[in-house]
Amino acid sequence: MLNPQLNKNGELKHLLTIEGLPTSIVTHILDTASSFVSVSDRDVKKVPLMRGKSVFNLFFENSTRTRTTFEIASKRLSADVINLNISASSASKGESLLDTIDNLSAMYADMFVVRHAQSGAPYLIAKHLTETRQDHVHVVNAGDGRHAHPTQGLLDMYTIRHYKKDFSNLTVAIVGDILHSRVARSDIHGLTTLGVPEVRAIAPRTLLPGCLEQMGVRVFTDMNEGLKGVDVIIMLRLQNERMNGALLPSAQAFFKSYGLTPERLALAKPDAIVMHPGPINRGVEIDSAVADGSQAVILPQVTFGIAVRMAVMSILAGN
Amino acid sequence: MLNPQLNKNGELKHLLTIEGLPTSIVTHILDTASSFVSVSDRDVKKVPLMRGKSVFNLFFENSTRTRTTFEIASKRLSADVINLNISASSASKGESLLDTIDNLSAMYADMFVVRHAQSGAPYLIAKHLTETRQDHVHVVNAGDGRHAHPTQGLLDMYTIRHYKKDFSNLTVAIVGDILHSRVARSDIHGLTTLGVPEVRAIAPRTLLPGCLEQMGVRVFTDMNEGLKGVDVIIMLRLQNERMNGALLPSAQAFFKSYGLTPERLALAKPDAIVMHPGPINRGVEIDSAVADGSQAVILPQVTFGIAVRMAVMSILAGN
Amino acid sequence: MLNPQLNKNGELKHLLTIEGLPTSIVTHILDTASSFVSVSDRDVKKVPLMRGKSVFNLFFENSTRTRTTFEIASKRLSADVINLNISASSASKGESLLDTIDNLSAMYADMFVVRHAQSGAPYLIAKHLTETRQDHVHVVNAGDGRHAHPTQGLLDMYTIRHYKKDFSNLTVAIVGDILHSRVARSDIHGLTTLGVPEVRAIAPRTLLPGCLEQMGVRVFTDMNEGLKGVDVIIMLRLQNERMNGALLPSAQAFFKSYGLTPERLALAKPDAIVMHPGPINRGVEIDSAVADGSQAVILPQVTFGIAVRMAVMSILAGN
Repeated sequence: MLNPQLNKNGELKHLLTIEGLPTSIVTHILDTASSFVSVSDRDVKKVPLMRGKSVFNLFFENSTRTRTTFEIASKRLSADVINLNISASSASKGESLLDTIDNLSAMYADMFVVRHAQSGAPYLIAKHLTETRQDHVHVVNAGDGRHAHPTQGLLDMYTIRHYKKDFSNLTVAIVGDILHSRVARSDIHGLTTLGVPEVRAIAPRTLLPGCLEQMGVRVFTDMNEGLKGVDVIIMLRLQNERMNGALLPSAQAFFKSYGLTPERLALAKPDAIVMHPGPINRGVEIDSAVADGSQAVILPQVTFGIAVRMAVMSILAGN
Repeated sequence: MLNPQLNKNGELKHLLTIEGLPTSIVTHILDTASSFVSVSDRDVKKVPLMRGKSVFNLFFENSTRTRTTFEIASKRLSADVINLNISASSASKGESLLDTIDNLSAMYADMFVVRHAQSGAPYLIAKHLTETRQDHVHVVNAGDGRHAHPTQGLLDMYTIRHYKKDFSNLTVAIVGDILHSRVARSDIHGLTTLGVPEVRAIAPRTLLPGCLEQMGVRVFTDMNEGLKGVDVIIMLRLQNERMNGALLPSAQAFFKSYGLTPERLALAKPDAIVMHPGPINRGVEIDSAVADGSQAVILPQVTFGIAVRMAVMSILAGN
Repeated sequence: MLNPQLNKNGELKHLLTIEGLPTSIVTHILDTASSFVSVSDRDVKKVPLMRGKSVFNLFFENSTRTRTTFEIASKRLSADVINLNISASSASKGESLLDTIDNLSAMYADMFVVRHAQSGAPYLIAKHLTETRQDHVHVVNAGDGRHAHPTQGLLDMYTIRHYKKDFSNLTVAIVGDILHSRVARSDIHGLTTLGVPEVRAIAPRTLLPGCLEQMGVRVFTDMNEGLKGVDVIIMLRLQNERMNGALLPSAQAFFKSYGLTPERLALAKPDAIVMHPGPINRGVEIDSAVADGSQAVILPQVTFGIAVRMAVMSILAGN
């Protein structure tokens, strides 16, 4: 079977996951993003690349932050943006997901940015659009269940490349609730695709999925050991709703074993960078001294995220 | 009394209902919409007809789908759109409807797109604007109570004209909950105005309003009989909230008597088209085999709906 | 300490409060607004002054009306507007206010329009932006707690200047719930700054703050006495949630003592104007005969409000 993200010429048609993307496409996205970083710095932050195109933000799961980044990226590309909080709309009237998609598509949509609590929903939508020959619509996965969050993964790759230049000699540690994290999964695929020789996962046994070794990831349950000599630390957000559940004793206990403190950070390379997809829980997964410290690149991640989303959207719209 | 929708030159000032509109105005709207269908097909889907105009979507009753179509239509006309979910705002602060209107009008609004649960609310607003000489603001009724949904009616007329070319020899059947349906009322006025010789209403007795014969409509309670030889079938949505109520036994029972199945569709003319205002309830008022079949034009209705709304808005803004 | 609203050249950097603003800056805002009043009258109501700039409406407290005026003002300046209802977003995920600000600022925001239930929140944000050298972002206070609502104050000053030309011989009465009113506070500072010789506060003792005399305000508990010979009457809105509480007997009793009736209005100068920030409570703080009468300038206030907000935003963006 062909990669459902690519068209017949091997160009990106949808962005559903980083898994299986050719390295050349990942690199092309990062290179394109690089040109947009300077756009955001200009006085007039707009380029006309998507003028007259209609982007639908389809958020079946609420996420103001992610929706906002796509809204800004769309507007800077001069697209028209329609925000749809679907849980409050047709879904409640009993309309099926694919009927909703067909309807919006019939309004001459050009792009669907989809956030959904169910893993695979964006893939289902892309597949349906292909089967029904609605080829004018592109799908961007803005996070689906535990599966993937490819634009977050790509902005993380952009950030690492920005600070470390070369992926070929890096050691990268991902720390926290890896089991439930679509960000972790997308980061692992991104790092692997770009040739990072050592990817580490650091988490309590209860928050580790089974498949990590097959993905070429070294697993650590001891954080001090896992952080030794790393170039990049990617902290994951601990979801409030999962704290004090069966898998975790408490936020305090988690911080004691897996919170990133200045002492622990000192175990990494001196020039290691600290990343986090946000929003951060100060004192739960990360100490304020680290979050606000000189090695943290959490806010640059946000800035690069706009440029990366502009890159993905303009590449899709152009193909 | 003058038609409150027309200005002194007999041009469209507000769109409140299809009832009483001159045929020439209805035809002018459909002809204008025709030019916008091609706009939506172009790469840059914008025309500058309403640049700098402010359109307020005043949805006193929630409807993401209808609001979205007006938002898209406005943006393709280059207007600025302000979405106001009024139930969540001033209305809850005890401000009267007309005080809200005066306030928004004082912000130099150019157009109010009004959806309201009360029949007559858009008419009340239009009347108030005239009486207070706020003649710069145009009103579009986006559905009021059980009264009218004129843009839906017009897009249905557009769809019928697109597929059938001529209205003068058609038989059109409207099926379902006609009693509560503003769509049915607007369709009947549209069909009558455009000279359709035979309009049929098919519904259980409990869902039929009293006035149909006076409107020149033939009433059928037996669906098989009503569908015989028709050119166009307009299915109505069965509102979830009305199922299992006093007027209806159950969704299953309704489908058994009034659901559109392939067998029933075969009673109509072989080239009959099947329409539905959406969102559809598969297996309640329509069988999936029909909804997804070759005679269904439900998705083209959506596409034409954007063009028809662009036509209405640009005509109002120009008069 | 320097005025946190001004940059090193003494130009307006943030608009947090009218208190302490140089008269020249207040006058400059009113003069600039004057040029925008005519923009709103034109056929194409847009000027390109903020093209490509990103304005974030950060409403931590819901206010559709105020948010709408800023949204319209932004769009007429050709800015991109992002509406964020923060209570529904990150705040609920436990992110701190300043982390949210840092994140949005990292998206290359140009302006934050902030409404917050806590007095001082916009000041806190402005201070943080300065301390963290995020000098590209400007803050506009759209109402904070009981503290200030400077754009309402400025539009009130604009309205008074429009009708009375000169501030130097006016008597202005502010009537109602002064204790809880940020509008009253901003109006008093505006009137004082512009040289109004007599500002009066009229309210029951329970709704009068302690500091009024120090601000140079004459206090009246008898409305008939307080209205005698005034040029301008500014009625305040009585918040529904405060009625029938400990401070007020009932809406009816309030209206009996402090409602503005035609009889009471007759005590003011014959050409006195009646203002109200809206939304009005007919029959609670103001009689319909007055609200709809020839001396009321409540709707012109709304119109001028758009121009004043355009003025503030374009001045900030230009400095």
